[in-house]
Amino acid sequence: MAVIVQKYGGTSVGSLNRIEAVAENIIQTRQQGHQVVAVLSAMSGETNRLLSLAQSLDKHPASRELDVLLATGEQVSIALLAIALIQRGYSAISLLAHQVGIVTDNHFGRAHIKHIKTKRLAQALEQEQIVLVAGFQGVDHENNITTLGRGGSDTSAVAIAAALQANECQIFTDVDGIYSADPRIVPQAKRLDHIRFDEMLVMANLGAKVLQNRAVEYAMRHNLTIRVLSSFNQGVGTQVTNHYSEEMPQNQLPVSSITHQQQELLLTLNNIRSHQLTAEYIQALADKGIELDMLNQTVMADESITLSFTIHQDSEQQVLKILQNDISNNAGVTIKLDHNVAKLSVVGAGIKSKTETIGQFFKALSDEKIEIMLISSSEIHISVIINKQDLIKGVHALHSAFNLNLSA
Amino acid sequence: MAVIVQKYGGTSVGSLNRIEAVAENIIQTRQQGHQVVAVLSAMSGETNRLLSLAQSLDKHPASRELDVLLATGEQVSIALLAIALIQRGYSAISLLAHQVGIVTDNHFGRAHIKHIKTKRLAQALEQEQIVLVAGFQGVDHENNITTLGRGGSDTSAVAIAAALQANECQIFTDVDGIYSADPRIVPQAKRLDHIRFDEMLVMANLGAKVLQNRAVEYAMRHNLTIRVLSSFNQGVGTQVTNHYSEEMPQNQLPVSSITHQQQELLLTLNNIRSHQLTAEYIQALADKGIELDMLNQTVMADESITLSFTIHQDSEQQVLKILQNDISNNAGVTIKLDHNVAKLSVVGAGIKSKTETIGQFFKALSDEKIEIMLISSSEIHISVIINKQDLIKGVHALHSAFNLNLSA
Repeated sequence: MAVIVQKYGGTSVGSLNRIEAVAENIIQTRQQGHQVVAVLSAMSGETNRLLSLAQSLDKHPASRELDVLLATGEQVSIALLAIALIQRGYSAISLLAHQVGIVTDNHFGRAHIKHIKTKRLAQALEQEQIVLVAGFQGVDHENNITTLGRGGSDTSAVAIAAALQANECQIFTDVDGIYSADPRIVPQAKRLDHIRFDEMLVMANLGAKVLQNRAVEYAMRHNLTIRVLSSFNQGVGTQVTNHYSEEMPQNQLPVSSITHQQQELLLTLNNIRSHQLTAEYIQALADKGIELDMLNQTVMADESITLSFTIHQDSEQQVLKILQNDISNNAGVTIKLDHNVAKLSVVGAGIKSKTETIGQFFKALSDEKIEIMLISSSEIHISVIINKQDLIKGVHALHSAFNLNLSA
Repeated sequence: MAVIVQKYGGTSVGSLNRIEAVAENIIQTRQQGHQVVAVLSAMSGETNRLLSLAQSLDKHPASRELDVLLATGEQVSIALLAIALIQRGYSAISLLAHQVGIVTDNHFGRAHIKHIKTKRLAQALEQEQIVLVAGFQGVDHENNITTLGRGGSDTSAVAIAAALQANECQIFTDVDGIYSADPRIVPQAKRLDHIRFDEMLVMANLGAKVLQNRAVEYAMRHNLTIRVLSSFNQGVGTQVTNHYSEEMPQNQLPVSSITHQQQELLLTLNNIRSHQLTAEYIQALADKGIELDMLNQTVMADESITLSFTIHQDSEQQVLKILQNDISNNAGVTIKLDHNVAKLSVVGAGIKSKTETIGQFFKALSDEKIEIMLISSSEIHISVIINKQDLIKGVHALHSAFNLNLSA
């Protein structure tokens, strides 16, 4: 009898009806002869509701106490689902992080899982119980409640699956798998049967986030199979592993998917007079925790330096303040901020090995007369910054150029 | 430095504003030089909200899981109050039942406290922290969450106060103490400075419930001083102890208060032909957990038996069903049900020793031409069943007759 760990996110348990649907889904897995451990998030909206209560009392609530507060969200979900399963005649038990022994460090609000005790879980499975574990939460060595940060339930599920050496960790969400492009933009986009963890990580960083990165990294390290499924529709979803799909032909498509992102701003600093000053700019931003993306530097004919990079739109004010105030000598430097940009990327484990891919990429955009402002690439992705109004045209062009259309 | 345990009920923490008011109240106690352990209920309405979620899934939700669900209510309260106190610059820590070690039996939904570990509490107090403990909940020997039943936070507070040998257990509620009668009916009713636990228990049973009986019994056994106070107004409240008040003159008033109750129905069974059948009736009801009050039996001239008693109105349907179906041979017995009754009582530790009290009691009611249907009494109370429409008149008459009026 195989152990399957299932994770249901906030929208999957967002109402009593949804909780009953999840109960039916778990029962179906059980009837297929599997043991089930289900890891749940808080009902959608609940974490934000609790957070806003806390912030009404203190704009920056005490982190230990905020974790005590937020952890109630998942506790409600597991108790309600257990009630629904027991009502249907199935033996089920809810377990909180301290009852399982999901041991974390004591960084409240962003704790890391150190290890998971399997004794209590194994005991419940031995008793043929369906086990419902509160996601997102842990307990430190002093028995304080901790939380893992937004999306932490993914990490809980993956870590529990690894600890139990489960056959598969199924992540139920509101999409039925991972797509070759955003189906809202490209109707011909197709669900991928399989992708690799490294592709998934890059896709997440490039705007197609389905799983929390930490969860993906954890699964990757423990060589665990993840499957992304919809809790709203039946289907096989997308399998994510460390390997190439066995069913894939060797001459597989170099590109798995097209991703895009519109939350970035392009900053260009012109007329920087020394490499030292360039370094000072970058360091000042990095020290304040600003993530610089698509970083690019050019030495101009007059030996001045032009520095370009993108930042998340949320950090605009903070970045401008640092650039204007924290730099000792920025005489002559001009700062240009472009809000009208988007990032367009192709992701695929085969990109590096297929040298023609980069040519195809640029030809496709050039054919559509799309101007490229910045470029970055790795073994498994190519990203460019383009004008926002060219984005949809660009997604379609690349999706066709790399033969990803559903009918292909 | 004295340790004071304070308990705040649901209405006392019913909103963010109320939580901030409680924070200020605790800070005031702290500034008077006391250590504070505050035990909190769920925000008013929250327990019912959670219960109705569970009952939408299952009319009789699995009891272990219902406790997991309901326990989140108090968890939210203590976390929010901790956040409010820390925001005000005070060191505070929230502790759940499993973190304190409030060990109970495993009767989910109505668990009894077996013992309370003081190590974690003492450690927090040593560190000069204000300690906020989740009321209503415990943990069994297998680390399952339990709850103590409605009003269980009172018991939590009293048990913690006893375990810590606290100087006083202050119960903050929405009334500013215990009154000589319901002030909504008798405007001249006065707040009692002091009453005894046994009087309090009898008053609770007679309709003037301020504290959970189990909490009162626990405090009584551990010789702990309780003080009932308002969290909405300043005041000294009512002190409850095992002793007579020292400030009281020896010739104190025999009666402390007048209580009343309107949730009871009067049942009269006429023409019962044998004592055996009488016993069968009583046993059948008792076996089903029906509480019979004011039980009275008379043998009539024709040797038939008349049995009278009151029941809570909520058990009307169940009682009628038992009387009509579960009795082997009830031929000839007539059952009369009277909805139009009320119970009127006087309570006071001095009733037994002052033989004139019972005379005064009947004279006061007789002067008002109030007809008495049933009587019961003990060392510290006299209760009668009267017509509902005579109730207010009766409360006033007794309140005056025993010199309880404010100006007296």
